[in-house]
Amino acid sequence: MRALVFDKSLRFDAQYPDAKPAPGECLVRVHLAGICSTDIQITRGYMGFSGVLGHEFVGTVVDGPDEWRSRRVAGEINCVCGKCALCQAGLANHCRARTVLGIAGHDGAFADLVAVPVRNLHAVPDAITDEEAVFIEPVAAAWQVVKQVRIEPRMQVAVIGTGRLGLLVAQVLGTQACKLEVIGRNPTTLALCERRHLRATHVDDVPRLNDRDVVVECTGSPDGLALALQLVRPRGTIVLKSTYAGDARIDLAPAVIHEITILGSRCGPFGDAIASLVRRELDVRGMISKVFPIERGVEAMAAAEDPANVKVLLKVNAR
Amino acid sequence: MRALVFDKSLRFDAQYPDAKPAPGECLVRVHLAGICSTDIQITRGYMGFSGVLGHEFVGTVVDGPDEWRSRRVAGEINCVCGKCALCQAGLANHCRARTVLGIAGHDGAFADLVAVPVRNLHAVPDAITDEEAVFIEPVAAAWQVVKQVRIEPRMQVAVIGTGRLGLLVAQVLGTQACKLEVIGRNPTTLALCERRHLRATHVDDVPRLNDRDVVVECTGSPDGLALALQLVRPRGTIVLKSTYAGDARIDLAPAVIHEITILGSRCGPFGDAIASLVRRELDVRGMISKVFPIERGVEAMAAAEDPANVKVLLKVNAR
Repeated sequence: MRALVFDKSLRFDAQYPDAKPAPGECLVRVHLAGICSTDIQITRGYMGFSGVLGHEFVGTVVDGPDEWRSRRVAGEINCVCGKCALCQAGLANHCRARTVLGIAGHDGAFADLVAVPVRNLHAVPDAITDEEAVFIEPVAAAWQVVKQVRIEPRMQVAVIGTGRLGLLVAQVLGTQACKLEVIGRNPTTLALCERRHLRATHVDDVPRLNDRDVVVECTGSPDGLALALQLVRPRGTIVLKSTYAGDARIDLAPAVIHEITILGSRCGPFGDAIASLVRRELDVRGMISKVFPIERGVEAMAAAEDPANVKVLLKVNAR
Repeated sequence: MRALVFDKSLRFDAQYPDAKPAPGECLVRVHLAGICSTDIQITRGYMGFSGVLGHEFVGTVVDGPDEWRSRRVAGEINCVCGKCALCQAGLANHCRARTVLGIAGHDGAFADLVAVPVRNLHAVPDAITDEEAVFIEPVAAAWQVVKQVRIEPRMQVAVIGTGRLGLLVAQVLGTQACKLEVIGRNPTTLALCERRHLRATHVDDVPRLNDRDVVVECTGSPDGLALALQLVRPRGTIVLKSTYAGDARIDLAPAVIHEITILGSRCGPFGDAIASLVRRELDVRGMISKVFPIERGVEAMAAAEDPANVKVLLKVNAR
């Protein structure tokens, strides 16, 4: 099969061995896949992964249980054991034995075929196009913020970072009653926020007054937490969404002095993501900057690193 | 008056100007004061403070409202405005206009006299000796952990660091039903824990299995958070008690991946601290390694930096 593979370096491989479903897995023929900052971080050494990249996708089940065959699906990315203490405690996304599609120990979706645990499948309603469905995974990650932090109408909430994930988090928070501000550096994406009626401010114009109740850190950069610590109020909450390769240099004394709550936040609820796309609460199509055929995957990854582009997709197979 | 002063360097000053109470403040003649790691960090540049050091003390009110005069007291360290939004919201310890005794903008208690806001005073019951009362402030900081995190009987709780603060946090958590373990490096203080029937383990003997529900970081070192991230379970809680000068180099990806809650924790409830000392739930006298007269304060600070000593006190005036 065709695949975009990272193994110390990134390459397109036209003859990669076909994905083979393990027990409990089905085979999905990928239509469209999305490039995430995590994919870029992996090419910089994050997670020490090698194999087929990609964890945001929409496709059709071509081999698997009858009730799923030929259905259009998105898939959760954590492949879990169902038996360990964390799975039994309802924390399956944190399964100790898990692999993660395109991130850890499991080939991903930048390929003609991807093997996906049947339990991970979510049917994509007809009301959602492929171009929207490919965003289900990152939209779910954005909804996770709302699952972890109780957002209330009086709250001053800031999202920092207007990259791919920041724009989704901002739009999801835009569905919640609160005083929301999006803080970024990129004029293009700040303008995108304004078009969605989200108050957007350039980072250099933001007074650092420790007065926000909640700050969601989506910059994808080690500097993001330091800025968040200058924005959040005493006893406020910082949600960390960014992952990146390497260490941050950070003065954590303000977190202690101001008794800040810092919450790590990762994967989220696919059900909420699908429902919000069906309800047209989010504009994800407006985030698509470029679509490349999978053969040009190396070029697509480079394009995804260019701040002029927001979301870059890989077209793999016709629907 | 006699005072231990930090102003770029540390000195004992026999002729420092007498403390003068501002409106709302009274004057306390200090009996005994405790040296805290924060005092040591200040001499390394933490908080950029200059003036009289010291924020843990017991003394007698010598000038102030009649109802307080001649009473033996301990004092809270945050001198607050009572008017700002944070004070009005019940977060007075985070008052934006605050000064902090011996830490920020207000002379401290390593002196014959210290000016203390009357609202900060707590009467010391007769059942508590001066040697115990001087621990009220750090014991309150230890109780703050229990105020911020709900501790339950099934929980695996680890305290890392067996310095001055770690030993108090461990003893306070020892009053709560939970599965408690104290992790340290210093054989003397680990033995002190065992004598208090607290399970104590050397840090090199602790498997790093991400299986603790709650980890309280009291190491006073930038490495403490990295260790905490190896101990805490997915969706678990790390309480940060350490403050120190300078940056930590830290890989925060595990906090995001495991969706950890990191809570900064600072000053705590004096009422709980006093009550637990009256109830004899904690052994603080056993932590006293050395007592120096204030004239030998520079030597006392050096002794407090020696890991062979746990708590070092300054004797200032007779009771």
